[in-house]
Amino acid sequence: MRVLGVDPGLGTTGYAVVELVCGTPALREAGVVKTKVALDLASRLFILYSELRAVIQEFQPAVLALEGLYSEYRFPQSALKMAHARGVVCLAAAQADVPVVDIAPGEVKNAITGSGRAGKEQVQRAVRSLFGLEKTPEPPDLADAIAIATAVAYRAARLDVRETPR
Amino acid sequence: MRVLGVDPGLGTTGYAVVELVCGTPALREAGVVKTKVALDLASRLFILYSELRAVIQEFQPAVLALEGLYSEYRFPQSALKMAHARGVVCLAAAQADVPVVDIAPGEVKNAITGSGRAGKEQVQRAVRSLFGLEKTPEPPDLADAIAIATAVAYRAARLDVRETPR
Repeated sequence: MRVLGVDPGLGTTGYAVVELVCGTPALREAGVVKTKVALDLASRLFILYSELRAVIQEFQPAVLALEGLYSEYRFPQSALKMAHARGVVCLAAAQADVPVVDIAPGEVKNAITGSGRAGKEQVQRAVRSLFGLEKTPEPPDLADAIAIATAVAYRAARLDVRETPR
Repeated sequence: MRVLGVDPGLGTTGYAVVELVCGTPALREAGVVKTKVALDLASRLFILYSELRAVIQEFQPAVLALEGLYSEYRFPQSALKMAHARGVVCLAAAQADVPVVDIAPGEVKNAITGSGRAGKEQVQRAVRSLFGLEKTPEPPDLADAIAIATAVAYRAARLDVRETPR
């Protein structure tokens, strides 16, 4: 199953397209959308939305994966801005008839590093190693998007196995 | 100046089109967009976005007015959902080249009721009286949208006066 993982943010959004090939995750695309602080909120959201729409159209993912919403955020204002960005990402998916699936941050970390409490750098290193990348994926939003897509691809494969009658 | 005021929410979004005619506010349109809890987040955002786009296309407002973001919200999860909705509203405006203007909740209340600390019911009564409506506008989101649009229309008129050379 082809999964588009997205780590949304108003300033920087990471995205990655991952699919399992014979159980091995393959990275089809990965990138970031950056928007300038000097732009107004609506223009920044428009840029993000347009870029994400283009990625969805090009790669036709089966699902778009996002980390679920926490109940507590350390920086409420940043969380609100992130939520604006997350809103237009969800919209881009809905417009393309791509279902949005949530995954808990702990499940993402656990799937990639083996620990649900791994830090950002550990996720970056694990992603680099898993896909044999030449460099550590930067910024962390990019590594997070790859990790989210991979974790959801794994989860889908597990569910498929369970659903197959023996 | 024709102002589209919006009070965004995932479940209920109020909107209203107001313009000043010889200094008197006239209500051109007002309504709510409701989305069902049973739908997934992305579908709800898509409905809201589509309805708002249609309103923008029909009424071609000069600006879209929203209440600014607070620094503190009593219900962080609700605030995050509201921010998703607010994001797609901003996007609809940006796509139509309609500037988004923020206004503080206190300025809205003050413009409509004379008190920056007025409660929801007081705003509803003041809106009803100001526009000579037969009934109290319900839900409060509708009255709030009318109040936001009116307050921004007043503000624009004040700014125009100041900008006019004498």
